Amino acid sequence: MKKGDDTKIKILDKGFELASKLGLECLSIGTLATATDMSKSGLFGHFHSKENLQLNVMEHAGEIFNQDVIAPALKAPAGIPRIRKIMENWIHWTKELSGGCIFVAAAAEYSDRPGLVRDFILEQQKSWIDCLGRIAGSAVRVGDFRADTNCDLFAFELYSLILGFFLYHSSLDYPGAGDLMSQSFERLINSYKP
Amino acid sequence: MKKGDDTKIKILDKGFELASKLGLECLSIGTLATATDMSKSGLFGHFHSKENLQLNVMEHAGEIFNQDVIAPALKAPAGIPRIRKIMENWIHWTKELSGGCIFVAAAAEYSDRPGLVRDFILEQQKSWIDCLGRIAGSAVRVGDFRADTNCDLFAFELYSLILGFFLYHSSLDYPGAGDLMSQSFERLINSYKP
Repeated sequence: MKKGDDTKIKILDKGFELASKLGLECLSIGTLATATDMSKSGLFGHFHSKENLQLNVMEHAGEIFNQDVIAPALKAPAGIPRIRKIMENWIHWTKELSGGCIFVAAAAEYSDRPGLVRDFILEQQKSWIDCLGRIAGSAVRVGDFRADTNCDLFAFELYSLILGFFLYHSSLDYPGAGDLMSQSFERLINSYKP
Repeated sequence: MKKGDDTKIKILDKGFELASKLGLECLSIGTLATATDMSKSGLFGHFHSKENLQLNVMEHAGEIFNQDVIAPALKAPAGIPRIRKIMENWIHWTKELSGGCIFVAAAAEYSDRPGLVRDFILEQQKSWIDCLGRIAGSAVRVGDFRADTNCDLFAFELYSLILGFFLYHSSLDYPGAGDLMSQSFERLINSYKP
């Protein structure tokens, strides 16, 4: 890796942290310059515009999500073990971020702001929802889930539980959020078993 | 109602609209003065501080939520009909707001900002979650749900589905979000039947 790449990754890590905490819209070349102690003109050389900076930060977040949540889960055996691993990694990812999941927050923040940032978020979320559906499909193939499983429905229900957990745990500090999440997750898995 | 009350309600309605769209933190006496075409000093006379304005707007949103979502549902027969009515009103409430549910957004926004606003949000959310649990309890009493129903778990699962629907419908414009929501809701209700 070249030195320039290394510097850019450090900047993107900081941008990712800021956007998670303050919201993507608060991320600008100015706020990032202050946070990284770099000059605005230096950062401008890397990113050229606020929109391009936001896009780069979201792409960077997408790469970390693939690397931390998806890739390790795909090494687990297909079926329920893989679904458990996805869930475990996803919960860990959410807990690590001070402002909750950056994709969910940015999807709400940009729901009425058409442009490249929104396009990227929609594409990333669609691809993640498709991935959850395919993982349910592989559970059907190995016989862990019934043959008539609606994989899109499973993906929706799994994603919903994670959102419930974000709200209860991260936003509300609700006692026993983890326990409610685990019980609901087991009920969901059981409801699709043959 | 006195004229002053009427004016204050109009201001609070506008504040509620702004906070839903831009986030509660963006709501200040200055932004509200611009939006209502009133003087900052006039608004200052009503609210005295930004925090107090935010608190008044959240209390106002809480009253509208009670009036539009909770009160009409409590008129439906206890049990599954009441749960269906709650869900219907709640979905309607979310669809009406341009930025999604103000309580969920503000809970995330204020998760690491202690103070009166966060205290109010936590209290409002706790009371809403308790209400969902009590509605499940009344479904147990009339025999619509099994006697061993964990009412807190039902509340968590119901809230999670609404959050999934917010994300798919409002943030992602996902085709078939309403259909996925309905199917999941029926599966949830059925899973608690005797």
